[in-house]
Amino acid sequence: MNYFSSNFKLGILGGGQLGKMMLFDTRKFDIQTYILDPSDEAPCKIACNHFFQGSLMDFDTVYNFGKLVDVLTFEIELVNLEALEKLENEGLKIYPSPKTLKLIQNKGIQKEFYAQNNIPTAPFEKYADVQNLKSAILNQNSSIKIPFVWKCTQFGYDGNGVKVVRAIEDLENLPNVECIAEEMVAFKNELAVIVVRNPSGEVKTYPVVEMEFHPEANQVEYVICPARIEDKVAQKAKKIALNVSEKFNHVGLLAVEMFQTQNDEILVNEVAPRPHNSGHHTIEASYTSQFENHIRAILDLPLGNTNSKVAGIMVNLVGAEGFSGDVIYENIEKILAINGVTPHIYGKRETRPFRKMGHVTIVNENMTEARKIAEEVKNSIRVIA
Amino acid sequence: MNYFSSNFKLGILGGGQLGKMMLFDTRKFDIQTYILDPSDEAPCKIACNHFFQGSLMDFDTVYNFGKLVDVLTFEIELVNLEALEKLENEGLKIYPSPKTLKLIQNKGIQKEFYAQNNIPTAPFEKYADVQNLKSAILNQNSSIKIPFVWKCTQFGYDGNGVKVVRAIEDLENLPNVECIAEEMVAFKNELAVIVVRNPSGEVKTYPVVEMEFHPEANQVEYVICPARIEDKVAQKAKKIALNVSEKFNHVGLLAVEMFQTQNDEILVNEVAPRPHNSGHHTIEASYTSQFENHIRAILDLPLGNTNSKVAGIMVNLVGAEGFSGDVIYENIEKILAINGVTPHIYGKRETRPFRKMGHVTIVNENMTEARKIAEEVKNSIRVIA
Repeated sequence: MNYFSSNFKLGILGGGQLGKMMLFDTRKFDIQTYILDPSDEAPCKIACNHFFQGSLMDFDTVYNFGKLVDVLTFEIELVNLEALEKLENEGLKIYPSPKTLKLIQNKGIQKEFYAQNNIPTAPFEKYADVQNLKSAILNQNSSIKIPFVWKCTQFGYDGNGVKVVRAIEDLENLPNVECIAEEMVAFKNELAVIVVRNPSGEVKTYPVVEMEFHPEANQVEYVICPARIEDKVAQKAKKIALNVSEKFNHVGLLAVEMFQTQNDEILVNEVAPRPHNSGHHTIEASYTSQFENHIRAILDLPLGNTNSKVAGIMVNLVGAEGFSGDVIYENIEKILAINGVTPHIYGKRETRPFRKMGHVTIVNENMTEARKIAEEVKNSIRVIA
Repeated sequence: MNYFSSNFKLGILGGGQLGKMMLFDTRKFDIQTYILDPSDEAPCKIACNHFFQGSLMDFDTVYNFGKLVDVLTFEIELVNLEALEKLENEGLKIYPSPKTLKLIQNKGIQKEFYAQNNIPTAPFEKYADVQNLKSAILNQNSSIKIPFVWKCTQFGYDGNGVKVVRAIEDLENLPNVECIAEEMVAFKNELAVIVVRNPSGEVKTYPVVEMEFHPEANQVEYVICPARIEDKVAQKAKKIALNVSEKFNHVGLLAVEMFQTQNDEILVNEVAPRPHNSGHHTIEASYTSQFENHIRAILDLPLGNTNSKVAGIMVNLVGAEGFSGDVIYENIEKILAINGVTPHIYGKRETRPFRKMGHVTIVNENMTEARKIAEEVKNSIRVIA
């Protein structure tokens, strides 16, 4: 198959920042791209060959879009699964496959999949809605005790749809939808491993990264590569991530988020079947970026080297509290003056509190130096209006 | 000035592969771009915000385009200089400045500039046309003896407009235009240094690279970074390149091509006031690519780190002899399977002999290994139809 400067058409569902960064590589390889996104201001709108505005959850829209392309992928999980299933049945190559997506899209099904496949994960219970969960807690019919983590099974992202329940009252204002209650894990570190796999079965892992979360917004603040953990823990995390990828029969990128417990156990938290925030540093730090490897994988090309050239740290750029409107990146000139600092601006004109507006990568030969610079970056730049 | 996700408009004259690679960085920073190019199939057509089709040599076209933007740059020297001069007089920021471009656009003026500024360069003579040159040689009125290098002063690129004259008959089929005759330099190496400078005067150099040319097509075959030369020679080359940049009062990127003579003298061959083939490896090998640093420089932002993370080698992908038509990159899968190999496909649908269709970058911690892989790449991939 000739993908390069040819009539081959790659379809991508979703036109956000992940798609935008994928388009750097489709452009580099001159692969023709079709994008579907509901927003007229999608960051992917330029740099793709053909942009279609439409709902990702609408059967007909997704189905008709799929009919235009030779291979289909997505940069967001919230897409119409039935349309994908029909397209796949009709012979379209879709990676990751709808079967895999079905297991991941619903967090309840995802957790049950781990339990069935002996993949270590925190204990949980699934409930039809919050009322049922509340009754179970009040009637002491639940093995999960307060405090616990509540997660809605569908449509959650970036901290939405996740809440730590510290008292029964915390359940009051939650949407009354299908949910899980998960035991809180006392962890040393939150880790992630990105696995990449192509249909021929070639598989590679990126180095284990360490994530530091914002205490309130539940968004990643720093991603640190490689994680500053013992080698045996890193090996264990990689092994589990590879096992997860294999069990899902996953093609493309799979970001596996994990907890390292106080006893150095590894528990799988959740997965994302697409390029992931925990791999953004790979653009500058790795021999092959996660985005390039996703493209290589879904086209069944040989995978690129996942090793790092240098230490990499990623800092998210989210809208500062108290600011909404036309975005200004305060002090961006200041951070540009620091060696090894690269801002990525996603292309959203309007900021609002905690909105993901971009990220900054810090690369350095020396991890301690990189970590110091990351903090300086974090304390300098502000996304205001 | 707020450049990022704002109403600021950057104009680029020329929409070829150099512009395309610049657009990776304008997109990364979400800087709005306007492109002017004569071809409806220009590689920049997607990934810029606004594309205009029109002649770069036409006064009105260039002038009217310039009126639309806040800062203007170019990715090709063959642009209408008078339009740029008028725009600059009217207050538009143009980098590199038309004054600098005027000194560089004509190779005769460029060589005279070196002579006037004590910049070491090979001895030369300027002629109104080939007839005059021929008479001077025949009448022994020239200090330049056969063999020598003939160059037309204008509109040459990539080996067009340059010829080694080994016998008087070699002058027969040359276009009868203004030209120079230049002494042939017995050189050990062809070197290049890319200098980047912003209007505030901050200036940095990339490491010295070594170039190997194709013996017939006079196109670069390998660019090797860093050059495998003595440190004192590298220091001398950098010093001369900085001097050239300063004398031209140049802003943006300036690629300075030089000869290292048998006596380790450095002679300036020619310069290009834009991103350059000798800097393509910087995308993968350097902390900051030449393209990003060009954007930083012309916007008077702090310059990025020009050091390398790893050794880098660039191999040009040019159309193979005997093939014209819809391009096929033969064995591209084979080279993608080698660690640290990244092809860049420029996006031209049709190949023809020696047409620049793309390049491949090889990065490795170890230069010897990188050089070995570069040769493997060179011997594997073929651009055919």
